[in-house]
Amino acid sequence: MIQKQFVVNGVPRNIFVDQEATLAKVLREQLHLLGTKVGCGEGMCGACNVILDGKLVRSCVIKMKRVDEGAQILTIEGIGTPSDLHPIQRAWIKHGGAQCGYCTPGFIVSAKALLDENKSPTREQVRDWFQSHRNACRCTGYIPLVDAVMEAAKALRGEIKPEELDYKLPADGHIWGIDSRYPRPTSVAKVTGTIKYGGDIALELPPNKLYLALVQAKVSHANIKGIDISAAEAMPGVFKVVTHKDIKGNNRINGVAFPTNKGDGKERPILCDTKVFQYGDAIAVVCASTEAEAKAAAEAVKVDLEVLPAYLSIPAAKAADAIEIHPGTPNVYYYQYLRKGEETKPIFDNPEVVVAEDSLITSRTPHMPLEPDCAFGFMHDDGAVIVHSKSIGVHLHKIMIQEGLGLADDKLHLVSNPMGGTFGYKFSPTNEAIVGACVLATGRPCYLVFNYHQQMQYTGKRSPFYGTIRLAADKSGKILAMETDYDVDHGPYCEFGDLLTVRGVQFMGAAYDIPNIRGEGRTVCTNHAWGSAFRGYGGTQAQFMTEIVADELAVKLGMDPWEFRHKNALRPPGTNPSGQVLDSYSYVEMLEAIKPKYDEALKKAKAESTATHKKGVGLAAGSYGCGLDGPDSSNAYVELNADGTITVCTAWEDHGQGADMGAVGTAHQSLRPLNIAPDKLKFTWADTRNPVSGPAGGSRSQVMTGGAIRVACEAMLKGLAKPSGGYYTYEEAKAANVPTKYDGTFSVPGVPLDANGQGSPFMVYMYGVCMAEVTVELATGKTKVDKITFNIDIGKVNNRMIVDGQLWGGVAQAIGLALSEDFEDIDKHKTMIGGGFPYIKDIPDNIELQYFENPREHGVHGAAGVGEIPLCVPHPAIANAIYNATGARVTRIPALPERVLEAIKNKA
Amino acid sequence: MIQKQFVVNGVPRNIFVDQEATLAKVLREQLHLLGTKVGCGEGMCGACNVILDGKLVRSCVIKMKRVDEGAQILTIEGIGTPSDLHPIQRAWIKHGGAQCGYCTPGFIVSAKALLDENKSPTREQVRDWFQSHRNACRCTGYIPLVDAVMEAAKALRGEIKPEELDYKLPADGHIWGIDSRYPRPTSVAKVTGTIKYGGDIALELPPNKLYLALVQAKVSHANIKGIDISAAEAMPGVFKVVTHKDIKGNNRINGVAFPTNKGDGKERPILCDTKVFQYGDAIAVVCASTEAEAKAAAEAVKVDLEVLPAYLSIPAAKAADAIEIHPGTPNVYYYQYLRKGEETKPIFDNPEVVVAEDSLITSRTPHMPLEPDCAFGFMHDDGAVIVHSKSIGVHLHKIMIQEGLGLADDKLHLVSNPMGGTFGYKFSPTNEAIVGACVLATGRPCYLVFNYHQQMQYTGKRSPFYGTIRLAADKSGKILAMETDYDVDHGPYCEFGDLLTVRGVQFMGAAYDIPNIRGEGRTVCTNHAWGSAFRGYGGTQAQFMTEIVADELAVKLGMDPWEFRHKNALRPPGTNPSGQVLDSYSYVEMLEAIKPKYDEALKKAKAESTATHKKGVGLAAGSYGCGLDGPDSSNAYVELNADGTITVCTAWEDHGQGADMGAVGTAHQSLRPLNIAPDKLKFTWADTRNPVSGPAGGSRSQVMTGGAIRVACEAMLKGLAKPSGGYYTYEEAKAANVPTKYDGTFSVPGVPLDANGQGSPFMVYMYGVCMAEVTVELATGKTKVDKITFNIDIGKVNNRMIVDGQLWGGVAQAIGLALSEDFEDIDKHKTMIGGGFPYIKDIPDNIELQYFENPREHGVHGAAGVGEIPLCVPHPAIANAIYNATGARVTRIPALPERVLEAIKNKA
Repeated sequence: MIQKQFVVNGVPRNIFVDQEATLAKVLREQLHLLGTKVGCGEGMCGACNVILDGKLVRSCVIKMKRVDEGAQILTIEGIGTPSDLHPIQRAWIKHGGAQCGYCTPGFIVSAKALLDENKSPTREQVRDWFQSHRNACRCTGYIPLVDAVMEAAKALRGEIKPEELDYKLPADGHIWGIDSRYPRPTSVAKVTGTIKYGGDIALELPPNKLYLALVQAKVSHANIKGIDISAAEAMPGVFKVVTHKDIKGNNRINGVAFPTNKGDGKERPILCDTKVFQYGDAIAVVCASTEAEAKAAAEAVKVDLEVLPAYLSIPAAKAADAIEIHPGTPNVYYYQYLRKGEETKPIFDNPEVVVAEDSLITSRTPHMPLEPDCAFGFMHDDGAVIVHSKSIGVHLHKIMIQEGLGLADDKLHLVSNPMGGTFGYKFSPTNEAIVGACVLATGRPCYLVFNYHQQMQYTGKRSPFYGTIRLAADKSGKILAMETDYDVDHGPYCEFGDLLTVRGVQFMGAAYDIPNIRGEGRTVCTNHAWGSAFRGYGGTQAQFMTEIVADELAVKLGMDPWEFRHKNALRPPGTNPSGQVLDSYSYVEMLEAIKPKYDEALKKAKAESTATHKKGVGLAAGSYGCGLDGPDSSNAYVELNADGTITVCTAWEDHGQGADMGAVGTAHQSLRPLNIAPDKLKFTWADTRNPVSGPAGGSRSQVMTGGAIRVACEAMLKGLAKPSGGYYTYEEAKAANVPTKYDGTFSVPGVPLDANGQGSPFMVYMYGVCMAEVTVELATGKTKVDKITFNIDIGKVNNRMIVDGQLWGGVAQAIGLALSEDFEDIDKHKTMIGGGFPYIKDIPDNIELQYFENPREHGVHGAAGVGEIPLCVPHPAIANAIYNATGARVTRIPALPERVLEAIKNKA
Repeated sequence: MIQKQFVVNGVPRNIFVDQEATLAKVLREQLHLLGTKVGCGEGMCGACNVILDGKLVRSCVIKMKRVDEGAQILTIEGIGTPSDLHPIQRAWIKHGGAQCGYCTPGFIVSAKALLDENKSPTREQVRDWFQSHRNACRCTGYIPLVDAVMEAAKALRGEIKPEELDYKLPADGHIWGIDSRYPRPTSVAKVTGTIKYGGDIALELPPNKLYLALVQAKVSHANIKGIDISAAEAMPGVFKVVTHKDIKGNNRINGVAFPTNKGDGKERPILCDTKVFQYGDAIAVVCASTEAEAKAAAEAVKVDLEVLPAYLSIPAAKAADAIEIHPGTPNVYYYQYLRKGEETKPIFDNPEVVVAEDSLITSRTPHMPLEPDCAFGFMHDDGAVIVHSKSIGVHLHKIMIQEGLGLADDKLHLVSNPMGGTFGYKFSPTNEAIVGACVLATGRPCYLVFNYHQQMQYTGKRSPFYGTIRLAADKSGKILAMETDYDVDHGPYCEFGDLLTVRGVQFMGAAYDIPNIRGEGRTVCTNHAWGSAFRGYGGTQAQFMTEIVADELAVKLGMDPWEFRHKNALRPPGTNPSGQVLDSYSYVEMLEAIKPKYDEALKKAKAESTATHKKGVGLAAGSYGCGLDGPDSSNAYVELNADGTITVCTAWEDHGQGADMGAVGTAHQSLRPLNIAPDKLKFTWADTRNPVSGPAGGSRSQVMTGGAIRVACEAMLKGLAKPSGGYYTYEEAKAANVPTKYDGTFSVPGVPLDANGQGSPFMVYMYGVCMAEVTVELATGKTKVDKITFNIDIGKVNNRMIVDGQLWGGVAQAIGLALSEDFEDIDKHKTMIGGGFPYIKDIPDNIELQYFENPREHGVHGAAGVGEIPLCVPHPAIANAIYNATGARVTRIPALPERVLEAIKNKA
């Protein structure tokens, strides 16, 4: 240890530190400046940015020995406070720069450093700055961040007043609709770093809290012969080492498997008992006073393993000599069929038809939220175990872990923390049961915060599809039939693996009128990372595969890809692959709107292509459903409080997508007759003690929970209406004995797929048509996306700023999905950079969005969802643009330079 | 545990707490809002004040279960920040409201709450508010706090601008002198709660820190037969239990005893080994991860004791059958004699002389700083143990503990933290060696923070004097001779007990020309709380005893007490009891200046006395030395830094008295030719790695260390002078190879007392004459001080605001000393209220100070010290005023109502 004197946010501080400690840890754990976030922890994301002696640094990699005596340190807390926002913070709010908000302090500190040295940067200079300082954002697609910096710079130059950046309510007081840019209610807390994420709250737990260090498998498949915790338990600071023996329930996560699943869905242990199924599996947990003590003791736990062959791919797991990963359950454990229209074999066998066929592989995409997975729990005085995590399905997860922990219904509650992004991985429980088990075993508050390698290696991933698609068309280009055959590598745990396989048949070729389809999908158990939800879940993989083959078919037909799509786009009375009539037939409208831009883009690409750099234009169309499969419902209540505020209570989890704004915006629109100020509406964080709203996945929340809020608000309007006109105040309602709390339930009559894959699984869909413009460097195969033009039909737009942000961010993820992101190599891909995280210069500053506001019957105030659609369409458009540029067809994503290069060579 | 949502300083927070935890602990230990201080921890001091839902509360006694969901909490951090001070904070700075600063956040929060509900309070309403909310200050005498509130109220009412409260440098740039009210350099940090005290820094230590819980004796005298730590060491969170067996050195504090002391001064163990010597003695220390774990384990340490008779008073310890507390050393272990002039027996035997004689007892006064004792330590990477504490003598304490710990000179460094007051108790080491031992035994950072009962029961106290004084005068009232005979109850540890006994003979009758004196003082070992320094050390006790008897003699002579004092006041060529010529013969001047006020006060007292309430006026005169006994010296250096600042480096400890201002003010005045802005001068916190400046006690620092700074500055002026005129800048000096660092040493040629008590122990003295006006309620004996008029000669005044503050605060302590403060009953007196802490309504709002600026030859720029003199004069003036009011003579302080009542009865 050493002592140094620093000036932190203008205040001199004596600091006593381990020289090897990082500045980020010292700021957070010693000085409690929790606005500085730790994302990757290895200098790849900039969430931890601070200004050190005038220079922007990533504090997670600055060791204290490198911080000079007398150093001046500026953190987000020193830039502005909720009551005194800095112009950069005001601009960040205005432009919706904070979605999950986890990268926000780091970006704002970075922007401050930039504007300190360059008062008038160009947009490209801003982008260069964020690129060179590795400021990573996973939510916004970076565009609103550059907008915010440009406008903050104006304010700092005195060209506009800082107050001009603040939101002004329109005269009629509405905040709902495509003209609304009402900032999300959490934005002030996010731009000031005062919102507390799970890892922040963990540090604020009472002093008797215990840090949890996992003992994790370093092999992918093994039998466990013994676990020896004796040495670890004797180490300093160790309160207890928890193993499966301490778990009172059945020690299994309930994967809520379909009845037709060959497994029972209960194959994932909370803590491994008999076997290790994948790299990183948790075998024991050291509960200790400090992180260092817990980690040291975790190293001392001895695990005796009999290593088994690891099946890290579908072919390996399906091989004849492969043993059953879960003894008693075949490695191929679920089958999904699609039979629509006539038999397809005769059609394909007909020599008159033109057939395109290809085999395609999608990636094991890592979600790469800025915030690594974290949770904490404690024993409530009412006798219940409370676990706070990044759960985006608190009620669902409670069901999934309750039996494993052996807890009665009133003895377990799950709560969602403010989260630094999940993008779906938290549709599966991760740490909840482990934390719950440790709380039960120790009686102490416990917290578990993953480092980024753990985030990458021990949370679910987007499951790869391996498959073959065949499309047949007549000579005019009209699609006659489709055949699909695919395997889904879902890793060792089935959780929703069956559902994901269903998504394949629902969305393969979903944009087109395909009268005859035969398809078969299979879910395969492997020893690679377990599959979890990810934006566009299934639709992403399905539509990549069919949009590539559709493009190939157009080529074979000698048709322009736009012409081919326009000809085949679903029109009334055509039905989607599930045989369902669409809730909005907008493909044609969107395709036609994109046509002039497409023609222009083609011309431009041709003109700008050089001998070394080829430009190309690609198209894709697609859709995704809003909801769970089949019937779905959600619940909410609204309650008028004594202070005149109204609580909008749901379990709508906010993983950065904007549940706060969704709840407040929906309620505000539904309560317009009350003429209440929007800041009088209070949203709630999701909690199993709130009404059951269902998980925040599959773009269902705005539709379903928004619907429940609307119903509750309508009941409130009715209930509070005075016979004489107007509405009761709280006092008046109490005096008149009129209820102040109103429940709302909203249901949709979805019909799940039958044995032939036919049904009406979703009552609301989103649709999109995307055009990608790319440049491919022929020598390297490196692809750059120059522009994305995205036409979208998500029904009525509820808030332009939120929806733009969701789409820009989704497109950015689609670019990463198309070009760089993967988690195939457990070691190489365990970091953000290794995993192919897209930085700002990977994302074009030009993402053009056009909305086609066809109101939805089942959408609240006409709105559908939004989150999944950008992950369903742009990535095949990019792959098709690579083909357009080079003539080389990429059939596996990510289209890494080496794959593109190989495709170019194969073509030659 | 429970979860609640609060709004803290305007920011919504989810907080997870133990319902039984106090709000103060949650704010400090969970939310890291360290501006909220914990003083007494039992609702008696208001340091922990916060505003909870608009109401001022003492957060140390509010349990979380009593804080409502949604509560609004305002702490000092929410009132203003260093860059954005609230008008109350500005006013606090302007009026010097923050001395040690520990009470400051609580007072400012309290003032905020007051002004929120009453925009225009009167002074008395402000005093009533602070009284009813138990806001305790130990430094300021409350007057500047009321001044600050009154002026902040003006600013808040808009009558003055907040900026008008800020200090403005005079045109010539000087900050030294009686016209200066330059605020002390630490004031911004203190009024914003951003200065970190030991207990705050402890919470900011790295996560591997260990909390130390003492296993303390609950008896006052015992033999130790065994210590069993096995059960404790097995308890959760316990890293180690440290006992004397773990200590590598001789396990003894070196009390630096005089050679003539019958003991060797090494009787205090770091941790008890063979015996317990006083209640609270530390027997073992549990080093654990958390406070709760450490305390639980401390309860589990089993100590087998053979209880011995406890000698809790001088008569008990001197009784014939008393065993030696420290075997081999007699309980009376030091004798000090005074023999000045002729033998006194013949004079007293002369029937012509008038003799007054009385036996008097002074109190075991507790220091009652707002901040309880605390320290932390760690193993520095350079291999040294570093201990930060409230030490006011870092180099001295290093000598005292180094051998006990068995550490080489370069393996131990002591550092002073910002301190919430010591008033002298930290002239003795308290926790330093214990913390050092635990750091050595564990290798971890360790911290020890006392609760208030530990502060009261296990830190040194002012040692009581028991003695008899005889004064003889001729019929004209001229004093002819004095005889003194006294015992000093120094508790079990000798540290400076010999020195204290010396102070008795130095200051008994010090204000008067007494040609012939015979005196004998004895230091007695008892089992009560060990003696430590306290402002006015020895002079307090000595001058109480002689000023009472002087008053009695005046009565016997039929003289007015003023006349008697005026007649006998030391005039040239008279010498003090040590036979030394004074450095300023100002008693007569000060007495004459007080005369008209005295006459007026007597008239007023007579006029306003009623049948039930008697008013009276009392006088006292006295002096105190500035320095250690005999020769003294101090060291400093000044260094010009690259940024143009100058570091003023000393080991001048700041316990609230103003070392920061002293160092900066002295250097600034000494460097006037440089015309440097005062905020460019940087002071240092005391550290054994700094120059040896000697302890900050005995009002020596301004004289001695100020002198060293002056010498260093003069060397700098000489060194940096350019041949061409003007002074080198840093760059120029480096270029010209001229040194930028200049050392200074300052020494004074004091002569310690010889065997007859004669010498020149101090080269600089302070002098005072005090008049007290009191009201005594006859029915109860309750005494109220109505006004203090204090004429003081402390040489040139260096900063009016600082000096006023020292004197007002010292007078407040003198009032407590006179009327309420005691630590005689180990249990009853263990709290602030039990110990007789003076609240605002115990201190008059009227303390009139008049300075007699006789420059001192050995004082830097003519200044003497200041801290001790107010503890040497006012308290006997109060006792004499009680006599004047009632005719009842109080001979033991504190003059509790029951003692006054008894004296009234005895008189009757």
